[in-house]
Amino acid sequence: MSQNCAVILAGGQGKRMKSDMPKPMFKVLGEPMLEWVIKACEEAKINNICIVKGFNSNIIEEYINSRYKTVLQEQRLGTGHAVMQSNDFLKEYIEGNTLVLCGDAPFIDNETIENSLDYHQSKDNSVTVITSVVGNPFGYGRIIRSNNGITAIVEQKDANEEEQKICEINSGAYWFKTKDLLKSLEELKPNNSQGEYYLTDTVSIVIGMGLKADAFASQNSNVVLGANDRKGLNMLNQVARMDVINKHMENGVNFVCTDGIIIERDVVIGANTEILPGTILKGNTVIGENCVIGPNCLIENTKVGDNTKLNYVQAYESVIEDNVKIGPFVHIRPDSHIKSGCKIGDFVEVKNSVIGNNTAVAHLTYVGDSDVGSNVNFGCGCVTVNYDGSKKARTTIGDNAFIGCNTNLIAPVTVGNGAYTAAGTTVTKNVPDNALAIERGEFKIKEDFALRKLKKRHKD
Amino acid sequence: MSQNCAVILAGGQGKRMKSDMPKPMFKVLGEPMLEWVIKACEEAKINNICIVKGFNSNIIEEYINSRYKTVLQEQRLGTGHAVMQSNDFLKEYIEGNTLVLCGDAPFIDNETIENSLDYHQSKDNSVTVITSVVGNPFGYGRIIRSNNGITAIVEQKDANEEEQKICEINSGAYWFKTKDLLKSLEELKPNNSQGEYYLTDTVSIVIGMGLKADAFASQNSNVVLGANDRKGLNMLNQVARMDVINKHMENGVNFVCTDGIIIERDVVIGANTEILPGTILKGNTVIGENCVIGPNCLIENTKVGDNTKLNYVQAYESVIEDNVKIGPFVHIRPDSHIKSGCKIGDFVEVKNSVIGNNTAVAHLTYVGDSDVGSNVNFGCGCVTVNYDGSKKARTTIGDNAFIGCNTNLIAPVTVGNGAYTAAGTTVTKNVPDNALAIERGEFKIKEDFALRKLKKRHKD
Amino acid sequence: MSQNCAVILAGGQGKRMKSDMPKPMFKVLGEPMLEWVIKACEEAKINNICIVKGFNSNIIEEYINSRYKTVLQEQRLGTGHAVMQSNDFLKEYIEGNTLVLCGDAPFIDNETIENSLDYHQSKDNSVTVITSVVGNPFGYGRIIRSNNGITAIVEQKDANEEEQKICEINSGAYWFKTKDLLKSLEELKPNNSQGEYYLTDTVSIVIGMGLKADAFASQNSNVVLGANDRKGLNMLNQVARMDVINKHMENGVNFVCTDGIIIERDVVIGANTEILPGTILKGNTVIGENCVIGPNCLIENTKVGDNTKLNYVQAYESVIEDNVKIGPFVHIRPDSHIKSGCKIGDFVEVKNSVIGNNTAVAHLTYVGDSDVGSNVNFGCGCVTVNYDGSKKARTTIGDNAFIGCNTNLIAPVTVGNGAYTAAGTTVTKNVPDNALAIERGEFKIKEDFALRKLKKRHKD
Repeated sequence: MSQNCAVILAGGQGKRMKSDMPKPMFKVLGEPMLEWVIKACEEAKINNICIVKGFNSNIIEEYINSRYKTVLQEQRLGTGHAVMQSNDFLKEYIEGNTLVLCGDAPFIDNETIENSLDYHQSKDNSVTVITSVVGNPFGYGRIIRSNNGITAIVEQKDANEEEQKICEINSGAYWFKTKDLLKSLEELKPNNSQGEYYLTDTVSIVIGMGLKADAFASQNSNVVLGANDRKGLNMLNQVARMDVINKHMENGVNFVCTDGIIIERDVVIGANTEILPGTILKGNTVIGENCVIGPNCLIENTKVGDNTKLNYVQAYESVIEDNVKIGPFVHIRPDSHIKSGCKIGDFVEVKNSVIGNNTAVAHLTYVGDSDVGSNVNFGCGCVTVNYDGSKKARTTIGDNAFIGCNTNLIAPVTVGNGAYTAAGTTVTKNVPDNALAIERGEFKIKEDFALRKLKKRHKD
Repeated sequence: MSQNCAVILAGGQGKRMKSDMPKPMFKVLGEPMLEWVIKACEEAKINNICIVKGFNSNIIEEYINSRYKTVLQEQRLGTGHAVMQSNDFLKEYIEGNTLVLCGDAPFIDNETIENSLDYHQSKDNSVTVITSVVGNPFGYGRIIRSNNGITAIVEQKDANEEEQKICEINSGAYWFKTKDLLKSLEELKPNNSQGEYYLTDTVSIVIGMGLKADAFASQNSNVVLGANDRKGLNMLNQVARMDVINKHMENGVNFVCTDGIIIERDVVIGANTEILPGTILKGNTVIGENCVIGPNCLIENTKVGDNTKLNYVQAYESVIEDNVKIGPFVHIRPDSHIKSGCKIGDFVEVKNSVIGNNTAVAHLTYVGDSDVGSNVNFGCGCVTVNYDGSKKARTTIGDNAFIGCNTNLIAPVTVGNGAYTAAGTTVTKNVPDNALAIERGEFKIKEDFALRKLKKRHKD
Repeated sequence: MSQNCAVILAGGQGKRMKSDMPKPMFKVLGEPMLEWVIKACEEAKINNICIVKGFNSNIIEEYINSRYKTVLQEQRLGTGHAVMQSNDFLKEYIEGNTLVLCGDAPFIDNETIENSLDYHQSKDNSVTVITSVVGNPFGYGRIIRSNNGITAIVEQKDANEEEQKICEINSGAYWFKTKDLLKSLEELKPNNSQGEYYLTDTVSIVIGMGLKADAFASQNSNVVLGANDRKGLNMLNQVARMDVINKHMENGVNFVCTDGIIIERDVVIGANTEILPGTILKGNTVIGENCVIGPNCLIENTKVGDNTKLNYVQAYESVIEDNVKIGPFVHIRPDSHIKSGCKIGDFVEVKNSVIGNNTAVAHLTYVGDSDVGSNVNFGCGCVTVNYDGSKKARTTIGDNAFIGCNTNLIAPVTVGNGAYTAAGTTVTKNVPDNALAIERGEFKIKEDFALRKLKKRHKD
């Protein structure tokens, strides 16, 4: 097992977010920024992770849910102080290297982590600052390079005119030799009147010890990005949103117009599929090839096959197979399985049901808690009555059945293979194969009803 | 009462809009530009307002509806001529100052008005031009400053090379000492062969009288923005749209992606609420905290409580309380009141109804002109039959009632507390508390119907 | 008949699209790029067209469907080789001029074609390269001009420092004297080790023959745009999308926010109509004046009159007349005709039906295969039962009829003028004028049902 480890600083508040949420818990494309950072570590095979929590620490604790060690920074006295809280954790990995990351800088990536570690080790550095070269360095700590590594990180407010022109900046992520980190934390002194300990000061401490400080410039200039307010968070989302969309374009996915399209980063989409505006794809959604998804679909944790068209569809936790056509205005609720060749038309809800191959549910129908065969035809306005006010029950419909318009199927009930139900029938008993179930009340025509009604209205 | 007043020039046509609407009546974020200008005056406590109307003046007259004085500029002979039409109005306020504003420059703001008035008065100016310093001044009148005020406003076509480089431009808004304005209007001569009188010429007239002309540079560079065509109007909307969204972000409202989001400026949104793409919020809508609104909601003049989720909902002139979940695909029509804890599912319309606490209306149901108790459960496909072709009537449903699927409730009718209706029942009489209403026709199973049908089809 | 002709090069693959589609078949605003190029020729009255197909040529052949001559370039050995495949075609028009166009550069326009032909002929050029002056010429062939025409086209990789600064670039489109083109193709040699023949080399061949090569700079800098991958294709769509929207703005159409709006280029929209975000208008759709379309409408091949409002409507191959109000959440399927003054409310589907003047279909209703009179009122949940499992039939409803809620109309059936159907009735026979059709089952009230049910549940 690797002796390398990571400490993720997640104690910050983010006051300007106007929220009780710790800043690293704010979401970018549906996932907390902290999760982005954790995933980057995991992808780089850094699995010894310690998360330093602070502001409203219980929220982070619940979110992490014992996946990784967390330590509490009770008083928030700077980044150096935050790392000190993980001293016990660090001592377990004292022979290796420690990666320090900001829990609210979500775009650190495994390649940067791996390449900077390689560099850190090959140069035998005590500390390697992960940096980025940016167009506008204003506000960031500037990297002062020497012939052999770096000599300092100069903050904006301390930078002279020459230093202000430096475009290589501190991302806030570092690799340390763990034992040198522990030593330099011992030397760290509060930097200002508030008594805060800054992690950047370890760089000069390390140099003062005669050890080597160096910098690794990431190719990914987004590694420096963070957010202090909702506008910044919106910008991070925008960056991530277009990165994901561009990645799908490279894979052959088609986008006429990307407006309002949000695709979370674990979503998989096959080549030649077209995503139309306003479509949101979430969670572990997988979309096949040659599909048309949108406009305005919202799909979450759902598997969609090939050659399927979804138009104004919301689908959750379901499976939709190949050559299916759904929409517009359809709601597929969890645990539904729509098999190949189905057609589902407008104003239909499907919930916790299997819909067999080539079945048609054309309009204004609710299919819930049902097992529907193949080649079934639903008329308009059909309802599977799955709840009697106290318990839920299932409906079973055989292959080739024909469910007449405005049929109520009172579950538990079975409609046999090839059976029919007449329009307007409330089906309270099982219908045998090939039978017709029909309910009819007394039917009357009252002649001249409208004329009498009119006369009456005039009399009133 | 203040002796200060405002004249708003609203006579223009806007030919390139291709419309019969006077230009100041074109809308930015749902309100006429003229209304933006009026509101800025009101917020700056300038309540003596005269609106100069011209092209299709009746439209402005109807819109203003006697809120403020309007005067007609019959022939449109320039901005100076327009102000002259308000002479009688100005004489009422002769001891004060007059603010002249363009009715089609919507982004004038109360702070600019107040600060420029302070400046105007403290400097004892006869005229104070409200200006803005912009990146690209091309096309605008340039401000020529002296040691003590300004010496001229030079139009684009008259500007020499040096003057063209000046980036401080005339916004078209001015403060005058009212009596000096009246005097200088008397001196104003038509400037060109069309006989047009330009208000800018009053600046040199004032200077010629030995009085002081000066300029106040607004911090808000949008004060100069106007629109001559639909593209310009779209740009004004875009500026206003992002201004409003940014203001909400500062208040802690979350936006993953702002595409297609239009929020009118009187809308109030609580912190930690998330607005998803394609959502339009209009009028006096108020949204609480911790809500999720969208994607694709359209909400108008509706009050929404805290912790409420609206997904593909249209709601008009209604109240939706806390902890409510609505959608997707729901239409809440005017005068509805959805109480706390309700769940309203897909393809539901509610109109002019009260829905009690924790009531569920899951799918494909119309609740109109109804008073529904708490903890009621509606099945699928229920209809409150509120119209018999001649008059509307109300439906009353007690607490804990259970309305079976495809029930028709023929109003006026009452379903008692805890009462049930069976699926497919047309309820024509009141249902007592805890009773069941059930309608059933003759139910038959016709065996082998499908086989006979098939045989018949083959014979045909 | 003109002796001028066009050769369109459409043999390319577009590997980075990750698709089996030939590159010119990828769509911009709903039409293959090849169709954009063909239409530009047609608008410029160039009707003798030969399309050179190559990669997956059958797809182009099927698409062209004998409208124009196609020739196959079996081996793809460069643009010069592609043109050679059309030799027989060219010989038919040997006395005229030949326009060579790229099938994947969709923004060539008829004005450029016509003006460049005028120039080509007036200058008596042998070849006229159509060029564009762009801000960033990197990657394109630079045009080397002399006092009298041009001397060369220098590719990026061959350009010296001076030549790299030239901003006039080759669009890939050319006019040739046809007989000079044929001669120079005979002289054309493979340019590289892959044995490819480049059409650009004909320029130096023509010059070598002592004939005149010249260039025509198009005012439309988009003529050079093409796409090699999905990102490029998205950019072409974005360019076309905003061009079309801007054109409609010039015509007086209003757009508050253009996000998610896609308007195909044959769509016609009247002045003062407003298009709201997320709206997609396709095919030969025509929208009248003073309409509000959107948000989120999807309209295809449909004619919409004046003063009509569509809110969240999908409509296909239909006619919607003046003063109609539809939505939200409505699906108008093909062959529907909605006459003046109709109101169609939420969750309604209309298919292959005529809806008469001022008829109201308020909610949750399906009208299919029906002829509906004027001033009809549909209640909620009505269904025209147009399919019995084997054949479709029509429903006829007279003027002023009143269709009660949850009525099933079993087609073929006629409801007479002024007739009523009672809520919950399944109408299986024709209803005479002014009559009422009513079906009622046995209606019972079971007192204390809920209490017994509760007791039973406790016993269970």
